[in-house]
Amino acid sequence: MDTRFSSAIHTLILIAAADHPMTSEEIAVSVGTNPSYIRKITGLLRKKEIITSRQGARGFALTVTPEELSLYDIYQAIYESEEVHIFDVHQNPSDECIVGRHIRPVLTDIFRQIEEQAKQELKSQTLQGCMDSMRKLIDKEDAS
Amino acid sequence: MDTRFSSAIHTLILIAAADHPMTSEEIAVSVGTNPSYIRKITGLLRKKEIITSRQGARGFALTVTPEELSLYDIYQAIYESEEVHIFDVHQNPSDECIVGRHIRPVLTDIFRQIEEQAKQELKSQTLQGCMDSMRKLIDKEDAS
Repeated sequence: MDTRFSSAIHTLILIAAADHPMTSEEIAVSVGTNPSYIRKITGLLRKKEIITSRQGARGFALTVTPEELSLYDIYQAIYESEEVHIFDVHQNPSDECIVGRHIRPVLTDIFRQIEEQAKQELKSQTLQGCMDSMRKLIDKEDAS
Repeated sequence: MDTRFSSAIHTLILIAAADHPMTSEEIAVSVGTNPSYIRKITGLLRKKEIITSRQGARGFALTVTPEELSLYDIYQAIYESEEVHIFDVHQNPSDECIVGRHIRPVLTDIFRQIEEQAKQELKSQTLQGCMDSMRKLIDKEDAS
């Protein structure tokens, strides 16, 4: 299980929505993990300049609006990669065999198409979109 | 790295293309792994009735044509799941926090859209398509 991406989105919703600058400790309680795990995530988000921590002050702030922040931006920050990675291709097929010699480019090409689609979908989704979906759920719950 | 899926596609191309029934040992050499890893894969493919091993004979045969066999069929067999799984959502967000209480359905919904797209793409690709791409690569290599 690799939940860094979902934990990062959770973290950013908290930072965007809270009425005070959230600390790693507060974020960790909500995400259900420990502060050092959150600090790894916030470190990556700071490195990509998605959040900032103000000197002398506790807690984080977004550097962009939630409308401007795509899930792809977050993915890139967390995995430190421009490519969305979904499928692995086996590393050591035999060069002695005609199938083994050509399998990697064939599969890489097919897998890249799927990964490119996923990238476009992540680009089309924003942090604000996540917050809006959450708001709808909360309103529905309140109404029932 | 999880290369079971790519190893399974490699295995099936060998079974489809070979001029004799391929054994686990022969497949393992081409994939660059050990026969017991291949036997796990062929076991899953047999369970899903994509391949068969004839009684008394060595090696495997496809039960369908490569045109009829989609990459999604292979994925389903290997992961024993109808859903294509790409992103994990963290398991223990806090119920005490309004964001923690609603994050899982929001992210699950977004991730499912991406996973559904990937599923449709895998459905649209066949083993024959992989073999055709490989043939093109081989012809290009021969021509140069």
